[in-house]
Amino acid sequence: MGDCLFSFYSSLAPALPLLYPSPSRQHILAMWGPAVITLLLGANVVSAQTFKRLGGCPTLGCVFPPDQTDFLVGQLFDIRLEVHAPVNGSEAAHGGVPDEKFTFCIQSGKGACKNAAEFFGVKEPALEKWTFSYFEDLFAQDAKTPTVVNVAAKAYRGLKLTTPGTYQARLSYYGNSQTVANWVVRQPAKKRQAKNVLFFIGDGMTQSMITAARLIAHKSINGRYQSLMQMDQMDYLGHQMTHSLDSFITDSANSATALYTGKKASVSALNVYADSSPNSFDDAKLETIAELFRRLIGGPIGMVSTAYIADATPAALCAHTRDRGQSPQIIQEYLNNAVSVNGTISWPTGCDGPDVVFGGGAENFIAGPTSPGGADYYKAFQAKGYDVVYNNTQLQAIGNDKKVLGIFSKSNMAKWVDRHVFPENLKNQKNSPTGDGTDAIDQPGLKEMTIKAIDVLQERQKKKNTGWFMMSEAASIDKMMHVLDYDRALGELLELDDTIRASIAHLKKIGEYENTLIVVTADHGHGFDVFGSADTKYLAAQTDDRKKRSAIGMYESSGLSGYTVAPGSLPTNDTAVFGTEGPNFPVQWNPRYTYAAGFGANPDHRETYAINTKGPRLPATAATAGDNQVNPVDQPNGFIVNGTLPIDEPQGVHSLTDVSVFANGPGAEAFRGVYNNIDIFFKIADALALGSGHV
Amino acid sequence: MGDCLFSFYSSLAPALPLLYPSPSRQHILAMWGPAVITLLLGANVVSAQTFKRLGGCPTLGCVFPPDQTDFLVGQLFDIRLEVHAPVNGSEAAHGGVPDEKFTFCIQSGKGACKNAAEFFGVKEPALEKWTFSYFEDLFAQDAKTPTVVNVAAKAYRGLKLTTPGTYQARLSYYGNSQTVANWVVRQPAKKRQAKNVLFFIGDGMTQSMITAARLIAHKSINGRYQSLMQMDQMDYLGHQMTHSLDSFITDSANSATALYTGKKASVSALNVYADSSPNSFDDAKLETIAELFRRLIGGPIGMVSTAYIADATPAALCAHTRDRGQSPQIIQEYLNNAVSVNGTISWPTGCDGPDVVFGGGAENFIAGPTSPGGADYYKAFQAKGYDVVYNNTQLQAIGNDKKVLGIFSKSNMAKWVDRHVFPENLKNQKNSPTGDGTDAIDQPGLKEMTIKAIDVLQERQKKKNTGWFMMSEAASIDKMMHVLDYDRALGELLELDDTIRASIAHLKKIGEYENTLIVVTADHGHGFDVFGSADTKYLAAQTDDRKKRSAIGMYESSGLSGYTVAPGSLPTNDTAVFGTEGPNFPVQWNPRYTYAAGFGANPDHRETYAINTKGPRLPATAATAGDNQVNPVDQPNGFIVNGTLPIDEPQGVHSLTDVSVFANGPGAEAFRGVYNNIDIFFKIADALALGSGHV
Repeated sequence: MGDCLFSFYSSLAPALPLLYPSPSRQHILAMWGPAVITLLLGANVVSAQTFKRLGGCPTLGCVFPPDQTDFLVGQLFDIRLEVHAPVNGSEAAHGGVPDEKFTFCIQSGKGACKNAAEFFGVKEPALEKWTFSYFEDLFAQDAKTPTVVNVAAKAYRGLKLTTPGTYQARLSYYGNSQTVANWVVRQPAKKRQAKNVLFFIGDGMTQSMITAARLIAHKSINGRYQSLMQMDQMDYLGHQMTHSLDSFITDSANSATALYTGKKASVSALNVYADSSPNSFDDAKLETIAELFRRLIGGPIGMVSTAYIADATPAALCAHTRDRGQSPQIIQEYLNNAVSVNGTISWPTGCDGPDVVFGGGAENFIAGPTSPGGADYYKAFQAKGYDVVYNNTQLQAIGNDKKVLGIFSKSNMAKWVDRHVFPENLKNQKNSPTGDGTDAIDQPGLKEMTIKAIDVLQERQKKKNTGWFMMSEAASIDKMMHVLDYDRALGELLELDDTIRASIAHLKKIGEYENTLIVVTADHGHGFDVFGSADTKYLAAQTDDRKKRSAIGMYESSGLSGYTVAPGSLPTNDTAVFGTEGPNFPVQWNPRYTYAAGFGANPDHRETYAINTKGPRLPATAATAGDNQVNPVDQPNGFIVNGTLPIDEPQGVHSLTDVSVFANGPGAEAFRGVYNNIDIFFKIADALALGSGHV
Repeated sequence: MGDCLFSFYSSLAPALPLLYPSPSRQHILAMWGPAVITLLLGANVVSAQTFKRLGGCPTLGCVFPPDQTDFLVGQLFDIRLEVHAPVNGSEAAHGGVPDEKFTFCIQSGKGACKNAAEFFGVKEPALEKWTFSYFEDLFAQDAKTPTVVNVAAKAYRGLKLTTPGTYQARLSYYGNSQTVANWVVRQPAKKRQAKNVLFFIGDGMTQSMITAARLIAHKSINGRYQSLMQMDQMDYLGHQMTHSLDSFITDSANSATALYTGKKASVSALNVYADSSPNSFDDAKLETIAELFRRLIGGPIGMVSTAYIADATPAALCAHTRDRGQSPQIIQEYLNNAVSVNGTISWPTGCDGPDVVFGGGAENFIAGPTSPGGADYYKAFQAKGYDVVYNNTQLQAIGNDKKVLGIFSKSNMAKWVDRHVFPENLKNQKNSPTGDGTDAIDQPGLKEMTIKAIDVLQERQKKKNTGWFMMSEAASIDKMMHVLDYDRALGELLELDDTIRASIAHLKKIGEYENTLIVVTADHGHGFDVFGSADTKYLAAQTDDRKKRSAIGMYESSGLSGYTVAPGSLPTNDTAVFGTEGPNFPVQWNPRYTYAAGFGANPDHRETYAINTKGPRLPATAATAGDNQVNPVDQPNGFIVNGTLPIDEPQGVHSLTDVSVFANGPGAEAFRGVYNNIDIFFKIADALALGSGHV
């Protein structure tokens, strides 16, 4: 389900307590992860599974990190091995008894394959055993006939490979079965090019959205834009492929893991390879770019997001769990590293408390059922030396020398459109981050958070001149696309663009622009595109759903953007609603002739193509659990578009498309061209010469 | 309506005579071009028109080329001036009597504004007068209350600006009204970098389609592709913005005009600025890159397309008309230049018969109602020295020294999927290009046509060592996307990629690779994206439309590509259907688990997400004219998706998104970054140093 469930609850019901489903592996599998098995014709058949026994493990012997993994020299990682014995189903074998005598060796280059414990100089790990179940396909799920699998497993913890080159990891089991993983250890660049890294993520942001945002915020004359997006003007352009380890559609946890660790992972997994055990915290961990920057360079780290701060994209900087829904434990890990969460499972590094943590999600800090151990986590951060701020006024007033935790709302933060165009919508939310039941009115935007974060990081790196690393996320591009609230999504995208513009100006002002690698990208897409215009007045005036569709203007009738035109110049009796920011944003958000956009993966919903003035949309609701239908109060003047998704899905879902990468500054040239999301990690590591001389 | 109507008729009814609607301007406007008027608050108000009085002319005084036009030094163009007097409607003024005493001057830099006839050294043109009508909005259209406009006009023909710099063109009318057009004449590069230009257009090809094509044709292991698209591997990546002169959604005529002339134009217009007169051939013309290459360098020109060869993308190389539907006249213009079509209206240049013309569209050559003047146009081409071939065997056998016309089918050519996977679908089409009523079975693909074209052009340039210019179009990416036949569209896209790969290899073989600028791009997008997988077996087994949607696998359940897996490795009882080309194409097209794609702008239709084995889809049909509903014989096992378009639209429509540009070779570096579609013309002109020393 990925982002969807979480963003749904958290973006639309900000005053409600969040749900943090923490099902066991069996439960997850029974709910969401049924699998169909390949007929095993060979040891390395790649199957077209819709459902999987275990991601990244098509055979009965599993090695994580799997085949095709690249490492940075010295990057820390765990190894997880599993041998499966399905008791029933199409793969049933070995009487359901897994081979406990499996062996595992590592071969460097063309050398001999050495026993792994010996190779890494660690003790042979203890054998572990468990059982899990899953469904082989949708028919099995309907028939409630799960397949049961018994497992024998081992894990090696906190390893590293310090010599560049190729390796083979070989798991031998059931006599002559073998699973081979080819690994490459990449040599980092020897010369550090970038002092600082400012990494922007527009969550779910595709090129079609950037194009649409340009249309509504930049005036064109006779087809030529008179100004451009900041992204349009960056020095280097690339595309990244987002295919995940075991599914071609990714979620934000999975993709952030790729961006920050250089490893393909599975949906919902944060910096681990998801195993089949019931424990969400015992999976094979991976060291992130933030952890590496902390451990090897000792510089300050910034984490900024408009989401609740335990959400996947910020969480993936510092947290390690197969279940992105474990928000309290994720917050705990920010402050105290992974070992604090699971005591017995060692992980030798961590973010050690990022220097800047700005976002929403107060419910994980206010003492209560969704804070770590029920404790007041504001106090826990203060006890570790953090200043804590709750609104933009305090944020701007605080000094730059100490670590800062800024939590500005419960759940996700308010959207740009609501903050600037419909401020009434910030009221009656009872989402104050202090938990006092008032409204979080004085929220900073992404721009204010990012500029302040630069100042804090800049100050905190001064003593050792380490430079700094920051991730800044426009989270609600994705969240608003999920609920088909295109206008709010584009508002968030324009705020991101404005933040990049302001950051460049600020870096120039403080003399750090030439030292800073700026990378802007997305983690995945949504199947969104503008296909024409809509005459909202005509559409509303029709009573028949099919006639309403005549309001769509295609091709030459799409006309010109109505969003960049001064009010009063349009033949409309509608109340024009205006932004307050001027350049680089629409001058009105509610013209008579709006853009009409489609969303290729959606629940049942209605469309009027007019902005939702009362707050984010909720396109579909379920009167009967699991049967989402058109929300009766959403866009009541619109026509019905029936969905293309399972009816238990109330939101739009992610898509496959490559996403754009824009980069400026030292090391930016490497971001040209077409590559994998995992390569972003290596390109940033190269710009920082991470691992060179540090192993 | 743009591509839509034409591709609909021509792609789906190949054996039927094509329709070539040639309505008068009044008729066009009454049918498709009603407009809403801005309240004229100022002389240069840019409005949010859905419908337009006249594209590119928001005021009552029109100058074409309009404000914001860039020219190449020496590029030929016409000027059209119009002064409008609306008789009724919201703009009614001047008693419906247009100012016949308007004046027009040109100012170079900061000089004086000189009378235009004097400035260009031509005679003052004669005054022209006409009347047209349009609707101001959809309410007016429903009420059948058109607005009538009287027009006074002039045209200046065959001009050029030979000094780089800025110009102002000023039309003065109605006393103190003025329309100002700012023009820039760009200096071309002085040094020619590229000897040859090979320009590939994937019609309608967005990045989401390239990503989907990669998914089905390139095997991935644990999230990493083991091979890549040729496009992925090109040296330079860019994005181009496709916004047209007067609508933000473009069609293929409009966008090809931008790509080939460097000028923004209107939907349906080929290398002209559409005026309001009834004559489709008197509009202000623009010189194309092909005409410039012919006139200034004297080198051979190639035109290759899988469409009927009078279709917009090939036509825009050489034809000049506001109505892309004028196929016979377009073919006539290929051979005899524009003056042959309209006798009295001079145009001093032309393609002079492209050296290579390869494609479909035999109905415009076989003597009959849709050939120029009813004549046998094969003979007309032969009379001008062309070899004529009708199938791949003849194509491969013909020499390289003479001009060649290759017409391989009536209407659009067969699709890659049908040629390679379902060859039975080529039968019973009665579409032989000879008109003998047999089937066009032996059709070349884009690859065969392009490689042969290279050989002919290479041979024909030898005498003067001029180099050559070729446009090669994968037309049916667009045509198959229009009918929501995603598989066939991706097959066409993969054929394009294979053609680029083969062309690079062939250019290397003949020693021209280092001399050839290769540019690959699209003319516009479609709102397409993959959002998950579909269990086609489960979907077909359900009887309820809402339950069928449960077959969609999202996120982790999207699984892996089923198209790259050897047959027999899947738990399916379906008949696997295999391609015959191997690498870079799917090894099967009909797996149980298919990709599920959405299309954001579609007519009512059904989805099963399984390939259409009997030929291209026809998703919607109209039992009652203008009321398109689900085609009862299309994907009968599927669930219904209701449309988001006016019900008179039987197909999906184009979208807004920027499209990708990939380039290799001399001059290719200029194609990096984000720019306008019109800049492609100037970048190619720069690589050829077109106009430098030639003016």
